[in-house]
Amino acid sequence: MAVGKSVTRVDAYEKVTGRAMFTEDLIGRQCYTAKVLHAKIGNGRVKKIDVSRAEALPGVIKVVTFQDVPKHAYPTPGHPWSVEAAHQDVADRRLLTDRIRYYGDDIAAVVAEDEVTAARAIRLIEVEYEEYPVVTDPFLSMKGEGIPIHEEKPDNVLAKSEYELGNVEEKMGQADIVIEGIYETAPVQHCHLENPISYAYMEKNRVVVVSSTQIPHIVRRVIGQALGIEWGRVRVIKPYIGGGFGNKQDVLYEPLNAFLTMQVGGRPVKLEIAREETFVNTRTRHEIFYDLKMGMTREGRIIAKEMEACSNQGGYASHGHAIVANGATAWRHLYDVKDVKAKACTVYTNCPVGGAMRGYGIPQVCFAVESFMDDAAKKIGMDPILFRQKNIYKGFFQDPYLKEIAANTNGVAECMEKGAEWIGWKEKRERYQNQTGNIRRGVGMAIFSYKTGVWPISLEISGARMILNQDGSVQLMLGATEIGQGADTVFSQMTAQTLGMEMDKIHIMSTQDTDVSPFDTGAYASRQTYVTGEAVKQCALLLKKKILDYSVKLLIRREQIPEEEGWQEKLDFREGKVWLLERPLLTIEEIGLESYYSLQESSVITAEVSLQKKQNAIAFGATFAEVEVDVSLGKVKVLNIINVHDSGKIINPQLATMQVHGGMSMGIGYGLSEELKIDSKTGRVLNGTLLDYKLPTMMDSPDLKADFVETYDPTGPYGNKALGEPPAISPAPAIRNAVLHATGVSINRLPLSPQRLIDEFTKAGLLKGGFKHV
Amino acid sequence: MAVGKSVTRVDAYEKVTGRAMFTEDLIGRQCYTAKVLHAKIGNGRVKKIDVSRAEALPGVIKVVTFQDVPKHAYPTPGHPWSVEAAHQDVADRRLLTDRIRYYGDDIAAVVAEDEVTAARAIRLIEVEYEEYPVVTDPFLSMKGEGIPIHEEKPDNVLAKSEYELGNVEEKMGQADIVIEGIYETAPVQHCHLENPISYAYMEKNRVVVVSSTQIPHIVRRVIGQALGIEWGRVRVIKPYIGGGFGNKQDVLYEPLNAFLTMQVGGRPVKLEIAREETFVNTRTRHEIFYDLKMGMTREGRIIAKEMEACSNQGGYASHGHAIVANGATAWRHLYDVKDVKAKACTVYTNCPVGGAMRGYGIPQVCFAVESFMDDAAKKIGMDPILFRQKNIYKGFFQDPYLKEIAANTNGVAECMEKGAEWIGWKEKRERYQNQTGNIRRGVGMAIFSYKTGVWPISLEISGARMILNQDGSVQLMLGATEIGQGADTVFSQMTAQTLGMEMDKIHIMSTQDTDVSPFDTGAYASRQTYVTGEAVKQCALLLKKKILDYSVKLLIRREQIPEEEGWQEKLDFREGKVWLLERPLLTIEEIGLESYYSLQESSVITAEVSLQKKQNAIAFGATFAEVEVDVSLGKVKVLNIINVHDSGKIINPQLATMQVHGGMSMGIGYGLSEELKIDSKTGRVLNGTLLDYKLPTMMDSPDLKADFVETYDPTGPYGNKALGEPPAISPAPAIRNAVLHATGVSINRLPLSPQRLIDEFTKAGLLKGGFKHV
Repeated sequence: MAVGKSVTRVDAYEKVTGRAMFTEDLIGRQCYTAKVLHAKIGNGRVKKIDVSRAEALPGVIKVVTFQDVPKHAYPTPGHPWSVEAAHQDVADRRLLTDRIRYYGDDIAAVVAEDEVTAARAIRLIEVEYEEYPVVTDPFLSMKGEGIPIHEEKPDNVLAKSEYELGNVEEKMGQADIVIEGIYETAPVQHCHLENPISYAYMEKNRVVVVSSTQIPHIVRRVIGQALGIEWGRVRVIKPYIGGGFGNKQDVLYEPLNAFLTMQVGGRPVKLEIAREETFVNTRTRHEIFYDLKMGMTREGRIIAKEMEACSNQGGYASHGHAIVANGATAWRHLYDVKDVKAKACTVYTNCPVGGAMRGYGIPQVCFAVESFMDDAAKKIGMDPILFRQKNIYKGFFQDPYLKEIAANTNGVAECMEKGAEWIGWKEKRERYQNQTGNIRRGVGMAIFSYKTGVWPISLEISGARMILNQDGSVQLMLGATEIGQGADTVFSQMTAQTLGMEMDKIHIMSTQDTDVSPFDTGAYASRQTYVTGEAVKQCALLLKKKILDYSVKLLIRREQIPEEEGWQEKLDFREGKVWLLERPLLTIEEIGLESYYSLQESSVITAEVSLQKKQNAIAFGATFAEVEVDVSLGKVKVLNIINVHDSGKIINPQLATMQVHGGMSMGIGYGLSEELKIDSKTGRVLNGTLLDYKLPTMMDSPDLKADFVETYDPTGPYGNKALGEPPAISPAPAIRNAVLHATGVSINRLPLSPQRLIDEFTKAGLLKGGFKHV
Repeated sequence: MAVGKSVTRVDAYEKVTGRAMFTEDLIGRQCYTAKVLHAKIGNGRVKKIDVSRAEALPGVIKVVTFQDVPKHAYPTPGHPWSVEAAHQDVADRRLLTDRIRYYGDDIAAVVAEDEVTAARAIRLIEVEYEEYPVVTDPFLSMKGEGIPIHEEKPDNVLAKSEYELGNVEEKMGQADIVIEGIYETAPVQHCHLENPISYAYMEKNRVVVVSSTQIPHIVRRVIGQALGIEWGRVRVIKPYIGGGFGNKQDVLYEPLNAFLTMQVGGRPVKLEIAREETFVNTRTRHEIFYDLKMGMTREGRIIAKEMEACSNQGGYASHGHAIVANGATAWRHLYDVKDVKAKACTVYTNCPVGGAMRGYGIPQVCFAVESFMDDAAKKIGMDPILFRQKNIYKGFFQDPYLKEIAANTNGVAECMEKGAEWIGWKEKRERYQNQTGNIRRGVGMAIFSYKTGVWPISLEISGARMILNQDGSVQLMLGATEIGQGADTVFSQMTAQTLGMEMDKIHIMSTQDTDVSPFDTGAYASRQTYVTGEAVKQCALLLKKKILDYSVKLLIRREQIPEEEGWQEKLDFREGKVWLLERPLLTIEEIGLESYYSLQESSVITAEVSLQKKQNAIAFGATFAEVEVDVSLGKVKVLNIINVHDSGKIINPQLATMQVHGGMSMGIGYGLSEELKIDSKTGRVLNGTLLDYKLPTMMDSPDLKADFVETYDPTGPYGNKALGEPPAISPAPAIRNAVLHATGVSINRLPLSPQRLIDEFTKAGLLKGGFKHV
């Protein structure tokens, strides 16, 4: 049994020894380098551009500006395309632009013989701007007082949505207690190890882009759209990649790179995005503002709730409204409240562009909702766990609008139990009451729900292909991508499991190539083990059937069994052998060899499936944190922290644990230190380097504890549900709630940085005089 | 209709602009270089080897010798493997050897940081030999008087075979005339543009070799055998290649290259074979000696014939006896003689190794037989065409032993007619009679038969995979290889033809990758259009069926047709549309898009087949040549030359014409100038450079005329039969027969070089005194 075992990553040796080939490693000897000229204003237009000095520089091959690119707009988000216009993404950007929508917008690009020349040429391009006032605040922006950021949206509102279940107003009127709260999250950046990088070249009349992306098949389609060429004329190859966290679930610079190689006769052109550019020119986690309201009974039963959410989109649509809308959908889950209302809007501003990031809107809404839950519990003087227990859905439930989204298994209560026990909840909640002094401790917690994949909001489709080799081993090809999360290992385990073979007989192809790999939309929405896993399972079952079909013919040929119908049902393939009851008749090595080389009947055994998954399953989890707060320094130290997850059956416990650790570390940074600071006057990013942007390092990280409540989801191919993104969701509110417990102060904007804590502690009267900042 | 049209090569632009990527172009920046130490004796053993000085050289990474390599032997020829031991190739070589079997045998190898260091290190290896007498003559070698070249064969005879149909001795006794003749061919080299080159690296616990080969799937298997590892742990990738002509239908240095990367922790290692090495260390066309005998009636009807053939194998088995045996099989075809006998043997000598080369033994046997036919015609004073017409099979015939080898269509008579007319046979045969003087002209001709592929002697299996893209274009993947012959273009035409689509909608993947590409044994035996063509056709038919299946569901969904059975039969897919009678209902673009992105029913449409072909078809052809001989200089100038081929239906007339031109040029070199000269004392190649080896250049080539007699073979997927190799077969004997016509002198050994002609003309009394050589 391979599933459920902590087998070693299939790429462990490659990655540890440095032998694994990433995009940069694959670039040939004769490759040009491209660089992009970014705007030096936050809002406005290019009045004049002069590239003559750049063009005159020796070693410059080509300079292109907004004047040279295709005149139509295209969408960038890594969503499946739809044949229905209503489901298609907003197309609001061109390869290069004269209309500057944020500080750093792309105006021109240079292709040169080497990097130094490209950088020098960029500096030689002279630009004259017409400046408009910069707006970084979505509430200001939606007043629509200035020149619209995009002409099509005069009020700068990209999208709005709302729903109401039951009658919220009526129920609010019946409530014993109504509480309200405002919560805000900060924009942050993914900070994946490997920066976005690609190189492009032409092959016949087609363009090939090798890119560090999570979504090669989607990149293919978007390049086609951006360039206005047939999608079949685009080929995208994805080697090993050094992380993405959703930033590479967007089509960033691949279309421009494809365009540039086409401008130089198909010669290879490399386009590498510098770290400083990733902070400004790729994507961020949306800053979202929440206004929440709940009506409760005196006993702590929530009877109505209401949300208004406003998301700061930045200059371009990217994943846009889907992020805040995802949070509004989650507002219906987890807690059993029949009367619910939500409004959400997404607003263009002159900020860097918000996009997909691990959790896709759920870390934001979870911070708001779970902070709100603790504020409410405090108000009615109830233990936060008890309060939640009173209100959570127990067992099965389904989304009222989208019935396919369902908690077929629901381990959230057990997650809370496990977490509470590990952290010593009861004892510490009591012990840390009524602390005084500068150093105070507290425990806090938060829970979340997370749906798996995007069905039925969008399409879920996946494919797998398997080939039986001569030696009885199996080639496994997928369009789903290994992005560091261990997907290749887990898919290999699934294949071994269903085929009943050893892991070392499964050879997975890690590189995706849209010309070759089965179609799959890629790594996002924690969908791959769930959706692609189904394709792997069905493909393995098909291969197994074909192995048995061939075996029957071979056994009859060898006169080991008589020629009659129905052998397929009597024989079994397991442990790499074909069995008749307890007697092994053939080995997979014999079958492999015969299928390739028999003079009587050769036909290589292969299987391929392409299938749509029309199911969804809700995963759950909880974080418990114990913190120590230095009130006068505004410093929070996480003493203990645990994530407990119900992600259904765990395919590989060790990999799952690592995944949880990584997510927790991301969640701690989100809670305590990370914030992309944007100057409200110029729109310029103020801390766009790894020195200034406070990403937690190994030294900032406490010991991380991960645990699981294993349920077996009937819709998951191996009982599994989402695991990739969930670990990053609940640490921030759990820490925030622990600080509340320690100090009695509600911090309602992320992150809980020293300056913010000093401000809030001062406001709350914990600090006086001398600590007030200027 | 795409088949039958002279569409432009799909790789034309790539190759003309230099954008096409060959193996050398793909090598990364961090690749070691390997070089091989070749023996400096022709027969013997290594007594002592000292690599210490080489190892001490800075930049040397690793030195390996015969002491370090796996101790078992492996076979190298590009034949399909067989599950039956009797059908497996002779395994007689190791990666490196201490037993030197020919001058240049491989003793050791160096891996170094760069090429110069590798070359210097090779020179620093000290070797002490024990020398044995060198034998380059197979007749001498088979006496078995010295130390056997391979222990297993004490008499140095690799293999023998013979057959007899009818009763040859009895029929010879009844003949009016019995004639005999001895004919010999010279060893020649392929001289493909691109030398053998590969680079290898490790990926996980597998080894990857990128190589300029005709047979990637076979190279995979042989590397597994040579290294003693599971075949599934080997991956072979074949980029564009610069010709092979059969030399790359042998597994040359790929196993050593794979071994070397495994010795340096999987770091990439390049192994490039220099031009000088190709002449010595790769393969040659076998030197074969023929002793022929025919009994005829006075009217020129052949009633019995007999052949004894002896093939000079060189030091290792490679394709071995299959070459001369192929000629002995062909001895049964073409001419309708019921009483036939042949004996063939293949003998190890201390010469460079004979292997596959365009025609695979048929150019040799054709030279012998067709020279013999003219000598016989001359003897009875009959026109050579008339003599052949009297004796050829007319219409259908099949091989008496291997019934699957059959002339389902037979255009040889028409080929002769066309050729005779074009060259002005009748008029010139008369005009050039009885010439005297130094400059004389003559016309000659030769015909041949050539079977297509290797069934039933060996396995024929092929595979194809197609994927319908979003834009309605089709990805085409094959294991068959483009080696310069135009295979990619022809397969694309076939796909377009069967799918009823435009050529520009077919995207063929030119690179073969054994992890990815359908299984196919590769480019040899002129098999690909015939065998792989069948897979392409069946795969396209399957894809078409699946397109219709999906279309029916889509049309029902859209309520364009009612929900009922049997639509698949009523609808037709052609011209990129689905039709109901004359009404188009759907375009392929709509179908493609829906199949990827429909929320109702998405499933990407793909098709794959792996099929065995149990048929064979005989192709025919003729060469007619007009020459001018300068008797005193021994120079032959080809004034006019034509090849006329019956290769069934011609898929692409222009490509076919180019193929014929190339083959004719090769045949002219074989006839007039090429010969690998081997020193009989040392076994050393004396002219192993392109300066000394007399390959004809563009300047030596007359205008080449190609023509076709198109028949439609019912066993060919598109009516086609072999075309790749046939053009090289008959030019040499046609020229030889033209010289006979011009001078009356029979030249019975190739090539007809000036020195040989001077000798023969002198012997024949055409030259006297002064021209005798010393």
